[in-house]
Amino acid sequence: MSFLDSQFQHLVPYVPGEQTRTKVIKLNTNENPYDPPQRVIEAAKVAATTLSRYSDPTCHQVIEPLAQHFQVAPENVFLGNGSDEVLFFLFQGFMEKGVQFPDITYGFYEVYSDLFHLNTQVIPLKEDLSIDLAEYTGDATVIIANPNAPTGLAIAPEVICAFAEQHPHRLIIVDEAYSDFSEASLVPYLDKHPNILVVGTFSKSRHLAGARLGYAVGSKELIEDLNKLKFSHNPYSVNAMTLACGEASLQAQDYVDECTNKIIATREWTQQELQKLGFETTKSQTNFVFCQHPRVAGETIFKQLKAQNILVRWFSNPRIANYVRISIGTQAEMETLLQAIKEIEGVDL
Amino acid sequence: MSFLDSQFQHLVPYVPGEQTRTKVIKLNTNENPYDPPQRVIEAAKVAATTLSRYSDPTCHQVIEPLAQHFQVAPENVFLGNGSDEVLFFLFQGFMEKGVQFPDITYGFYEVYSDLFHLNTQVIPLKEDLSIDLAEYTGDATVIIANPNAPTGLAIAPEVICAFAEQHPHRLIIVDEAYSDFSEASLVPYLDKHPNILVVGTFSKSRHLAGARLGYAVGSKELIEDLNKLKFSHNPYSVNAMTLACGEASLQAQDYVDECTNKIIATREWTQQELQKLGFETTKSQTNFVFCQHPRVAGETIFKQLKAQNILVRWFSNPRIANYVRISIGTQAEMETLLQAIKEIEGVDL
Repeated sequence: MSFLDSQFQHLVPYVPGEQTRTKVIKLNTNENPYDPPQRVIEAAKVAATTLSRYSDPTCHQVIEPLAQHFQVAPENVFLGNGSDEVLFFLFQGFMEKGVQFPDITYGFYEVYSDLFHLNTQVIPLKEDLSIDLAEYTGDATVIIANPNAPTGLAIAPEVICAFAEQHPHRLIIVDEAYSDFSEASLVPYLDKHPNILVVGTFSKSRHLAGARLGYAVGSKELIEDLNKLKFSHNPYSVNAMTLACGEASLQAQDYVDECTNKIIATREWTQQELQKLGFETTKSQTNFVFCQHPRVAGETIFKQLKAQNILVRWFSNPRIANYVRISIGTQAEMETLLQAIKEIEGVDL
Repeated sequence: MSFLDSQFQHLVPYVPGEQTRTKVIKLNTNENPYDPPQRVIEAAKVAATTLSRYSDPTCHQVIEPLAQHFQVAPENVFLGNGSDEVLFFLFQGFMEKGVQFPDITYGFYEVYSDLFHLNTQVIPLKEDLSIDLAEYTGDATVIIANPNAPTGLAIAPEVICAFAEQHPHRLIIVDEAYSDFSEASLVPYLDKHPNILVVGTFSKSRHLAGARLGYAVGSKELIEDLNKLKFSHNPYSVNAMTLACGEASLQAQDYVDECTNKIIATREWTQQELQKLGFETTKSQTNFVFCQHPRVAGETIFKQLKAQNILVRWFSNPRIANYVRISIGTQAEMETLLQAIKEIEGVDL
């Protein structure tokens, strides 16, 4: 006998990328290949000594320095348990007039719109896999990932600002999980565009995927409303160790930047090498590449690499079924990957 | 302009007990006064070294030993970001036929029932502040805290089992946040009562309030349904450090038991001392005492102690406005508390 409400019996939960503890080259969940800064590790240990006490639900310890980092006020910053929790609140509470998002994007948008029974319009990417905001007409809240995943493509901030200006009564959510690997973030434009909300994460450029820390930056009103929901859900959702790690990460900005630059350099190198092997790659502004080969199917590449203990991500969605998404690892890992790809029959004729 | 949905504009969020970093004796949020075991601190540090990688959403690392601790199977255990997240899922997904809970209990039940617009029946405690399950008639899901907070009173497991047997088609949720300080848990009775779900937390007896770790124990079907919701919300809500700390806490059972026994002994001593001063105390089975004085109002006691940097909790709800709830600290802290109480005018005539 199931006690679960009838409205949730149909739910199809999100399927996270495969996690493994066996020795593999793991290029399937867009994690940072470099260890967290040493001060993060020290901060975790110190925070653990006082775990008998509740953590600070205001998250002041991270909100202050994060606001400084973005050159905004603390009341413009919201903190959550990963950007997933932030997105959850947005889908729960800010989409009364429906939601629009691309057909190919972060898989959780569809899970959330389904969870909340939202009036959802899924808008196909253009043939070249880019987003055309002109197609996002009507009243609904818009959510786009910029850069988008798994395509890796970004829209210029000016284009999003112009769209927001044309639609002042609509909320435009820009999920910037990967923006530190791109050329631009919307954050500097927020004071002129109170209907844009930027969502971000410490999971990618900040080495803290395992700590669960995400944020939103936007108008004071939007942040207040997000806090209203948070304090009706789970006020302590960000634990004391994660707060300490987030603070330490912001204090280690030089190291974070150094790793980001290495990842970008390795991405550019990887794309060039893939192109030499005949791959077509998108112009990625993220910590992954998205590529397809004219002669070898995406699923084949995925399986052949897996057989050699290299995990990449393949999506069965027909529009992108010929592609694979490959997270950027260390330079050495990517050299091993390239070698393995060369050995796949049909790639390097 | 607020972009928040109209259905949430009215929300009255939960108000957490006051947190402070100034030097006070903190007896207001039922935290464990003893530090976490040393191996928890070491585990946090080790886990922090691999934070660049996502945590394991299956939470296997804690579910296995927790299942062993309870002598159930791993598929009978669910893990969440504090018991608050577990309760959130329960209120979201298991109360289609409404919910019943006592008028005086954990404040979040009302917040959640409001958040989800549930058909809610609030059932008054009896005059002696006990719960009479005979009053919980009808079809609705029942949730009780056992022991209850802030009263500290517990119902015998046999009484709850008999009720569950009379109502085989209703879900009975027993929130056992404080049960390690009581004489009995419902867990050993679950195999015979598939309509009872036990919720618990690592925040109290397990020293991990700041780490956010909660659980549910129940039938395989209930746990599967909870996971269906979790994987549609935030699959990684329990971070890697918290998983490591939870595992370490279970490995330090002797230390946990030793601290629990000290807390129980201090509770009994505190209650006796309070009675000598004329206080009436409930028969607490928790890590706090709930007491009132015939001549001095609860609010007065709360304020006078606060003026002396001792924080206790006072609730404005008229039925219990004469009471204060005092968390059990170390023996030394409770001696200081008693001294301070004696000095309040009117207490010790």
